[in-house]
Amino acid sequence: MDAAACAEEFRRRLDAAADATESALDALLAPAPLPGEIARPARLLEAMRYSSLGGGKRLRPFLVIESARLFGVVGEAALRTACALEMIHCYSLVHDDLPAMDDDDLRRGRPTTHKAFDEATAILAGDGLLTYAFDVVADPKTHHDAGVRAALVLALARAAGLGGMVGGQALDLAAETAATPLTLEATLQMQAMKTGALLRFAVDAGGILGGASVSQARALTRYGEALGAAFQIADDILDAEGDSAALGKRAGKDAERGKATLVGLLGLDAARARRDSLVAEATAALRETGLGEATDILAEAARFVAARRN
Amino acid sequence: MDAAACAEEFRRRLDAAADATESALDALLAPAPLPGEIARPARLLEAMRYSSLGGGKRLRPFLVIESARLFGVVGEAALRTACALEMIHCYSLVHDDLPAMDDDDLRRGRPTTHKAFDEATAILAGDGLLTYAFDVVADPKTHHDAGVRAALVLALARAAGLGGMVGGQALDLAAETAATPLTLEATLQMQAMKTGALLRFAVDAGGILGGASVSQARALTRYGEALGAAFQIADDILDAEGDSAALGKRAGKDAERGKATLVGLLGLDAARARRDSLVAEATAALRETGLGEATDILAEAARFVAARRN
Repeated sequence: MDAAACAEEFRRRLDAAADATESALDALLAPAPLPGEIARPARLLEAMRYSSLGGGKRLRPFLVIESARLFGVVGEAALRTACALEMIHCYSLVHDDLPAMDDDDLRRGRPTTHKAFDEATAILAGDGLLTYAFDVVADPKTHHDAGVRAALVLALARAAGLGGMVGGQALDLAAETAATPLTLEATLQMQAMKTGALLRFAVDAGGILGGASVSQARALTRYGEALGAAFQIADDILDAEGDSAALGKRAGKDAERGKATLVGLLGLDAARARRDSLVAEATAALRETGLGEATDILAEAARFVAARRN
Repeated sequence: MDAAACAEEFRRRLDAAADATESALDALLAPAPLPGEIARPARLLEAMRYSSLGGGKRLRPFLVIESARLFGVVGEAALRTACALEMIHCYSLVHDDLPAMDDDDLRRGRPTTHKAFDEATAILAGDGLLTYAFDVVADPKTHHDAGVRAALVLALARAAGLGGMVGGQALDLAAETAATPLTLEATLQMQAMKTGALLRFAVDAGGILGGASVSQARALTRYGEALGAAFQIADDILDAEGDSAALGKRAGKDAERGKATLVGLLGLDAARARRDSLVAEATAALRETGLGEATDILAEAARFVAARRN
C-alpha cells in the first residue's frame, strides 16, 4: 500500500473498531443480569455506561483487534478482549478525575462521571468497570481455550495493577507534591506504567489470541512499548502547545500542576525528535514479526499516535 | 465429633487459615516486581499492605480453604484463591470507608487507609488490590488447569462486580438518601449482593477447585447463601445491640444513618429467629452434599457467624 492508501485504510479500520467496540460495550452493559449476578442496579449501570460509551478514539480496542488480525483472529474473541481493555481504560479515567486525584470537571467535552452523578457513584462505577473487564475476558464466550482466557486475564491484571497503570498513577500523583522534580529516567518509568502498560497489553493480547511465536510476541511487545512511549510524549507535546477546544480538556494544566512531562525535561524540540525516533522503533519492531505487509496498519497507527492533535 | 470438640477444631482451623492467609498475603505483597510488572511503587505497596495485612478473622479465606478441603484440595490452590478473595474484601472496605462513601475514620480499631495515608492513595490501593486478586487467581501457580483458573476468575468477578458486591454497595448508599425506606425484599437483595455474594463465592470456589458434582455445587451454593444471609443479619443485630469496643468500629451508626437493616424492618426478636433458621438451612444444605462428617466444620462456621460478637 502507498502512504495515502495506508493512512486511509487506517482511518477506516480505526472507525470500524470504534463502532464495533461501542456496540459491544452497549450490549455488555445491558440491564439484564448475567447468570450468577443478582441484579444490575439501574443508577450504577447508568454511570458505568456514561463512563464507557460514546467517547474516545478507541485506540486500545483498535490495537487489540488489529494485532489479533495479524494472526487471522477476528470476531468475538478480539472484540470482547478489546472491550475489557477499554473498560479498564475508562475506569482509570473515572478514578483519575475524582476530586482526590486530578479533580477534573470535564472529560471529552462532557462533565466527568463524579460531576454527572456523584463521587460515590463514580468510585463504584470505576470499581464495577474494572471488575467487569475480568468477567468479560474469563467468560467462555471470549475464547474456547481456557488457557488463552487465563493468559489474557493475567496479562491484563499485571498491566493494569500495582506494577503497571495503578502504580504509574500513584507515581504521577507523588511527583506533583515531591520536593524535587522526577528525573528523566523516573519520568519514563512512570509513563511506561501509567500509559504504556495498557497500550502494550493491547498488542500483547493480539499475540496471545493468535498464538504468536515467542519471537513474534517479543517483537509485538517492543512495538507496543515504543508506541506507548510515543503516545505519551505526543500527549506531553499536545499539553504544552495544544488548545483546549481540540483536546476536549484544559491544555497546559500538566505544566501548571508541576506534573512530570518530557517536554519539561527535554524541551519541545528534543521531545519531538524523541517521538519521531520512537515511531521508527515501533515500525522496525513490526518488521521483525516477519508478518510483512499485514503490519502496515499498525505502523500507520504508530504514526497516527505521534501526530494526533487530540 | 461432639459439639465441644467441633467448636474447638473450628477455632483451630479458623486460626490456621488466618495465619496461612497472612503469610501468603505478605509474600504476595513483597517489594520485588513480578515478571511483566515494571516496578512496585513503595508507598502504594505500603498502603495495599496496610489495607490487607494484620486484620480481621479471615472468614472468607477460611471458607475457601475448608470448602476445598471437602474435596481433598489443600495447599497453594486454595490458599492463593483465599488470598485473592480476601484482597477483594479488603479493597471493598477501603473504598467503602472513603469520605464520599461511608466516611469512616476507624476500621478494626485502626485508622482507615485514607486516614493513615491519603484519599488518592486509598482509592489507588483499593484499585490495586482488586486488580491483583485477578492476577493471583489467573496465575498458573494457583492451579495447573487453566479451566479451573478461568472459572474462578469468572465467578469471582461476577460475585464482586455490578451484579454482586459493588452493586450491593450502590443500593445500600442509595437507600440512605431515598425518600422511602427499602422494603424487606429490597433489603434482602441488597444484602445478598453487598455481603452475600463474596461469601457465596468462597464456598463455590471450593467446589470449583475440587471438581464438585453439579448437585454438590448446588448444595454448597445454598450453604453459602444461607451463611451469607446469617452473617448479615448477625451484623445488623450486633450494630443494634453491640458495643463499639468489641466491634472495633462505632455501633449504632447504621440505624443513625437510616441504613436499611433487618433489625429495623423485623425487630430484634424476629431478626434473631430468622438468623437461627438460616443456620439450620445452611446445615441442611451441607448434609445434601453427601460428604458426611467432613462438613461438620462448615456447619460450625455457620453457627459461629451467627453467634459472633464482633
